[in-house]
Amino acid sequence: MKIKLSALAQQFELKLDGNGNDSITGVSSLDKAGQEQLSFLANTKYTSQLKESNAGVIVVTEEMKDSFAGNKLIAADPYVAFAKIASLFQHNDKPVKGIHSTSVIAKSATIEDNVCIGPMCIIGENCHVLSGTVLEARVTIGNDCVIGKNCIIKPNAVIIYGCKIGDRVIIHPGAIIGADGFGLARDVDGWIKVPQMGGVRIGNDCEIGANTTIDRGTMDDTILEDDVRLDNQIQIAHNVSIGKHTVMAGCSAVAGSAKIGKNCLIGGGVGIIGHLEVCDGVTLQSMALVTRSIKKPGSYSSVSPLQETHEWRRSAVRIKQLDKIAKRIAILEKKNRE
Amino acid sequence: MKIKLSALAQQFELKLDGNGNDSITGVSSLDKAGQEQLSFLANTKYTSQLKESNAGVIVVTEEMKDSFAGNKLIAADPYVAFAKIASLFQHNDKPVKGIHSTSVIAKSATIEDNVCIGPMCIIGENCHVLSGTVLEARVTIGNDCVIGKNCIIKPNAVIIYGCKIGDRVIIHPGAIIGADGFGLARDVDGWIKVPQMGGVRIGNDCEIGANTTIDRGTMDDTILEDDVRLDNQIQIAHNVSIGKHTVMAGCSAVAGSAKIGKNCLIGGGVGIIGHLEVCDGVTLQSMALVTRSIKKPGSYSSVSPLQETHEWRRSAVRIKQLDKIAKRIAILEKKNRE
Amino acid sequence: MKIKLSALAQQFELKLDGNGNDSITGVSSLDKAGQEQLSFLANTKYTSQLKESNAGVIVVTEEMKDSFAGNKLIAADPYVAFAKIASLFQHNDKPVKGIHSTSVIAKSATIEDNVCIGPMCIIGENCHVLSGTVLEARVTIGNDCVIGKNCIIKPNAVIIYGCKIGDRVIIHPGAIIGADGFGLARDVDGWIKVPQMGGVRIGNDCEIGANTTIDRGTMDDTILEDDVRLDNQIQIAHNVSIGKHTVMAGCSAVAGSAKIGKNCLIGGGVGIIGHLEVCDGVTLQSMALVTRSIKKPGSYSSVSPLQETHEWRRSAVRIKQLDKIAKRIAILEKKNRE
Repeated sequence: MKIKLSALAQQFELKLDGNGNDSITGVSSLDKAGQEQLSFLANTKYTSQLKESNAGVIVVTEEMKDSFAGNKLIAADPYVAFAKIASLFQHNDKPVKGIHSTSVIAKSATIEDNVCIGPMCIIGENCHVLSGTVLEARVTIGNDCVIGKNCIIKPNAVIIYGCKIGDRVIIHPGAIIGADGFGLARDVDGWIKVPQMGGVRIGNDCEIGANTTIDRGTMDDTILEDDVRLDNQIQIAHNVSIGKHTVMAGCSAVAGSAKIGKNCLIGGGVGIIGHLEVCDGVTLQSMALVTRSIKKPGSYSSVSPLQETHEWRRSAVRIKQLDKIAKRIAILEKKNRE
Repeated sequence: MKIKLSALAQQFELKLDGNGNDSITGVSSLDKAGQEQLSFLANTKYTSQLKESNAGVIVVTEEMKDSFAGNKLIAADPYVAFAKIASLFQHNDKPVKGIHSTSVIAKSATIEDNVCIGPMCIIGENCHVLSGTVLEARVTIGNDCVIGKNCIIKPNAVIIYGCKIGDRVIIHPGAIIGADGFGLARDVDGWIKVPQMGGVRIGNDCEIGANTTIDRGTMDDTILEDDVRLDNQIQIAHNVSIGKHTVMAGCSAVAGSAKIGKNCLIGGGVGIIGHLEVCDGVTLQSMALVTRSIKKPGSYSSVSPLQETHEWRRSAVRIKQLDKIAKRIAILEKKNRE
Repeated sequence: MKIKLSALAQQFELKLDGNGNDSITGVSSLDKAGQEQLSFLANTKYTSQLKESNAGVIVVTEEMKDSFAGNKLIAADPYVAFAKIASLFQHNDKPVKGIHSTSVIAKSATIEDNVCIGPMCIIGENCHVLSGTVLEARVTIGNDCVIGKNCIIKPNAVIIYGCKIGDRVIIHPGAIIGADGFGLARDVDGWIKVPQMGGVRIGNDCEIGANTTIDRGTMDDTILEDDVRLDNQIQIAHNVSIGKHTVMAGCSAVAGSAKIGKNCLIGGGVGIIGHLEVCDGVTLQSMALVTRSIKKPGSYSSVSPLQETHEWRRSAVRIKQLDKIAKRIAILEKKNRE
C-alpha cells in the first residue's frame, strides 16, 4: 500500500510541513527508515537521531520539528499518531470466514455471522460468540461463555466455563481465563479444595498477554474493567478487580481479592498481596512488592539496588544488622547530649 | 438443588442453631447472600459484616455465633465446613463418557472403564489411564505415563513421556509436566545439552496450577509427595522434591535439586536456590529469596519495604553505603570510648 | 544398549584407567549407580561420595581419580564428557516419519523430506520446514515462518507468523514465539495498540524452555543469537537482543529493547529493565533487578538477605529510615570534629 502524505495528514488530522505529494509504503525506526517510510520521534532524548534519519517523513511535535530538514507531520502526541498510522500497514492475513471443519462446536452454541473460527477450536455448550470475532486456531472455550464483538483470540488460549469477554478484546496465545482460584482449607488430614464458583468478567478493549492466567472468583467474579491491558505471564488471582485503563507489564502477579484502581501503571514482576487496595493513578516500579494498601496516587518502589556481588555481600550483612546499628547511633547521640 | 438445614447439619456433622426446615439452594459471600443461600465467617476481622448479612444460614464457630440473629451452623473450622458444603453446589458439567472421536489414542495404551476423554486429546504408547479419570479436552500425554484414578486434567495440559501421576490429582490448563530439566555443560565451542532421563512422580491429591511447569529429573525423578498444592505459573526444576501438604502460591520457583519439606506454606513469587534444603513447617513470605538451607521451622522474609519512589531512591543510595556507614559508627564509638 | 569401556574411551577421546572389557548399559547418579552404570564427579565438594559409589565406571578429572578404586574415565571436564556419553542412553522414541493425518498443513507450505509432523499440528501459508525437523504433536506455526534443520518442537509450542528459527533448535512445550510486543500509546480516551510489525529471529542451537514467551519486535526483530539457552517461563519482550552462548534460568524477564551481551549467565527470576545494555560476560544472581546498563563484566546482585520475619520487620523499618540514619551519623561526626 502506498499513501500520500497529504492523505495521511487529512485522515489523521495532522499538520503537514513538507511535500504532500510524497508518499510512503510503510513505517520503520528512525535509523532504518528510507525515503518511502514514515518514522516518529516521541522522546527528546533521541532528537540527535533525527538529523541522520533518511525517513521520508517524520511525525514530531511542533517543538521538535526544526530538528529535521525533511517532511514532517506535526502531532500533539507523535507516538499516538504513529500508532494509528502504523495500523494501516500492519500484517493482516485476512482470516478465513466460517468455521474450519476440524473445529468442534457444541450444537447449543450461538455463533453469529461474520465470526471466523480457524482449525481445531473447541466451543462448549450454550456459548455465544458475537459478530466479527476471530478465533485464529486451537482456541478452547468452555460451556456458557459469552465472547463479545470483534475480538481476536489467538492459538492455545483457553477460556473456562461461564466467563464473559467484552468487545474488541485481544487474547494472546496460551492465556488461560477462568481456571480455578487457589482456595484451600486445611482440614485435619490435609487440604480441602474450596469450590471456585464465580466467573471472570473482562470489559471492552482489554488485551490479555501470552501465557497470562486470570483465575475465576470463589463466589463472585474476577473483574477487569474496560481498557485494561495485561502483558505476558501475568497472574491474576481469584476475585481481583482491576480498574479502567490500568496497564500491567510482564510477570506481575496480583493475589486474591486485591482491588487495583484505574489508570495505574504497574511495572514488570510486581507483586501485590491479597485483599489490599491500590488507589487510582498509582505507578509501581518493576519488581516492587505491595504489602499494604496504597491510598495516595504516586510512584512506589521496593527493590534493593544492584551492586557487584562482592559489594552486595557486605551490604547484605549490614542490612541484617540495621536495627542494632540504629540503636548504636541512638546511644552515641545520647552520650553526645550528656 | 435445594437442601434443608437439618440435612446439612446431619451430613457434615455440624450443630444447627436455627430452623432445620429452612433450606438453601447455594452459597454466597456474606454481603451478597440472600435467604436461600449459605455463607460463612472464618475471620473475626469481618464479624461486623454478620449483622448486615441476609444469608439464610451462616457457618460460624461457637464463639462467634451470637453476632448473627438468623440460622447458624456451628463448626470448629467454618472455612473447612464451608468448603465441603460448597462442593455440593459447584458447577458440574457431567463429562461425556467414552473417548471423543477426535482424540488420538495409541493402540498400546490402556484406558480403564469410566474414563472420560474429551475432544482432541492425544495419548501415547503404553500409557495407563485409571478408572474415573477425566481428560476434559486437548490434553497431551506422552508415551509410558500412568495417570491414577479420578484425576481431572484440563485443556492444554501436557504430560511428557514416562511420568507417573497419583489418584485424585487435578491438573489445570496449560500445566507442563515432565519437560526437560535445564541441564547444560559448557564445552569449548558452546553449550552441550545434558540429557534429562529421569521422570516426574506426583503423589495423590495434588493440584497443579495453570501454566505451571514441573521439569523431569536428570537421572532420578522430580517428586511431589501427596497433597502438594501448586498455584499457577510455578516453576519446579529438575530433581526437586516437595514434601506432603506443602502449598505454594503463584509464580514461585524452585531451582534444581532443592528439597522442600512437609507442611510448608510458600508465598507468591518466592525463589528457592538449587541444592538447598528447606525443613518441614517453614513459611516463606511473598517474593522472599532463599539463598541458604533453612533448618528451623518458622516464617522467613527478604524483600525491601515499599516506599514512595523519591524516598526509595534515598534509601537505595544508603543501602550501597551501608558497610561504610557501619564503619563510621565504629569509629565514632571508638572515639567515644577514648 | 551395552557398550564397553574401551569403546567409550575411544569414541569420546578419554583416557581409561581400568578394565576396558567391562561394559555399561546406562548412567546414574553417584549414589544410585550400579555395576552396569556410569556416573561422574564434577564438583570436588562431593568427592566423599566417590568412595561409597558402586558405579561400574566414573568420569573424573586426573586430579580426582585416586579417590575412587574402580574403573575411571579421565576427562578434562567430566560434566561435559558425561553429557556426551549420557546422550547415547537417553530416551529416544523414534518419531514417526511423515505427516499425521490429523495435522492441517497449508498447501503453500514447503515441508522438506525427513520432517516428522505428529498429530494435530497446524502449519500456515508459505512456511518452510527444513529437513530432519520433528514437530512432535500439537505444534502451531503461523504463516511465513522458516524452521531450520533438525529442530525439535514439542507439544503446544506456538510460533506466530513471520518468525525465523535456526538449525538444531529445541522448543519446549507451551513456548510462545512471536506474540505481539506490549506497545501502547496513551490517547485521550484510552490506550491505542501500537502495531507490532517486526518478527523474531532465533539462531542455531538455541533452546527455548516450557511456557517461555518471546515477543515479536515493533518494527525490527527480536533476536536470539546462536546457542542462547532459555529455561522455562522466561519473558523476552519486543526488540530485545541476546548474544551468543548466553544462558538464562527460569522466570527471568527482559523488558523491551534491552540488549544482553554474549556469554552471560542470568540467574532465575532476574529482571532487566527496558532499553538497557548488559555487556558480555555478566553474571546476574537470582532475582536481581538490573536498573542501569552494566558495562563491566562480573557478578551482580540486588536482593535483600533472608531473615526470620520478626527480625526482617525490624530491618525493614530501618531501611526506610536509612537516609535519616546517615544524616544523624554525619551530625555526630561533625560534633566529634568540633
